[in-house]
Amino acid sequence: MIILGIDPGTAITGYGVVEAKGNSYKSIAYHCLRTGPELPLALRLKYLYQGLMEVITQYKPDCMAIEELFFNKNARTALAVGHARGIAMLAGANTGLPVAEYTPLQVKQAVTGYGKAEKLQVQFMVKTLLALQEIPKPDDVADALAVAICHAHWSSSPGGRIK
Amino acid sequence: MIILGIDPGTAITGYGVVEAKGNSYKSIAYHCLRTGPELPLALRLKYLYQGLMEVITQYKPDCMAIEELFFNKNARTALAVGHARGIAMLAGANTGLPVAEYTPLQVKQAVTGYGKAEKLQVQFMVKTLLALQEIPKPDDVADALAVAICHAHWSSSPGGRIK
Repeated sequence: MIILGIDPGTAITGYGVVEAKGNSYKSIAYHCLRTGPELPLALRLKYLYQGLMEVITQYKPDCMAIEELFFNKNARTALAVGHARGIAMLAGANTGLPVAEYTPLQVKQAVTGYGKAEKLQVQFMVKTLLALQEIPKPDDVADALAVAICHAHWSSSPGGRIK
Repeated sequence: MIILGIDPGTAITGYGVVEAKGNSYKSIAYHCLRTGPELPLALRLKYLYQGLMEVITQYKPDCMAIEELFFNKNARTALAVGHARGIAMLAGANTGLPVAEYTPLQVKQAVTGYGKAEKLQVQFMVKTLLALQEIPKPDDVADALAVAICHAHWSSSPGGRIK
């Protein structure tokens, strides 16, 4: 199963393509899409959508995984994340991918075994599980890989879910 | 100039198509797109995008107008609005429409002359300015028409802007 993990943001959207075979995970690609604040928001969203469609076309994932709500953020941040998150889910839906959502707790639990793990611990485990030379940068890319691994983990468990 | 006003929401997105000729406004169409909570979010966003694309294809507006951020909402509401708002702006950008954003204060100022007007006053003026028989329902439709009228007003003023 090939999973496209997404960490959405208008300025930076991280993505990670992970192949899961049983308990073994392999990273196929990981990078991020950036849009500049000098552009109108509608165009930033357009470029983000185009970029994600290209990633989907190139790597042909079987599904998309994306983090759920971040209630600890303020309303301004939440709305900005919402724009990019909606675009990412639309790119999935428009290409026929099932889109699975996971809470930060589920991601941390799946990747480190502890739902309240620190960010650095999650990043360390992403590097370890995917046998990478170093922690992917920026954080958005590591987070995208983490949610992809999380989906591989949960979708093979009774608690897994595709919404 | 034909303006497509949008009041975005995942459950209900109101839209209003207004033709502006100088100081005269005429409503060409107004309605709303609804998606049910029983559907996965990704599919709700897909149907919303498809619906807006059909509206744009049918009425061929020259531009889109949409309200800016609502900072008085909580993070959960802001994220949900953000999903739908991102989708609406993408539909505009993907069809080559300029997308103009207005604050609630600008909308109220343009429609009623008073930036802190009550909702009912705004709705009354939407009905009056468009010479409608009654106030359009639900509120999302009246709000979509209000932001379209707002764009007609401001785009013919020095303070107008298209982002």
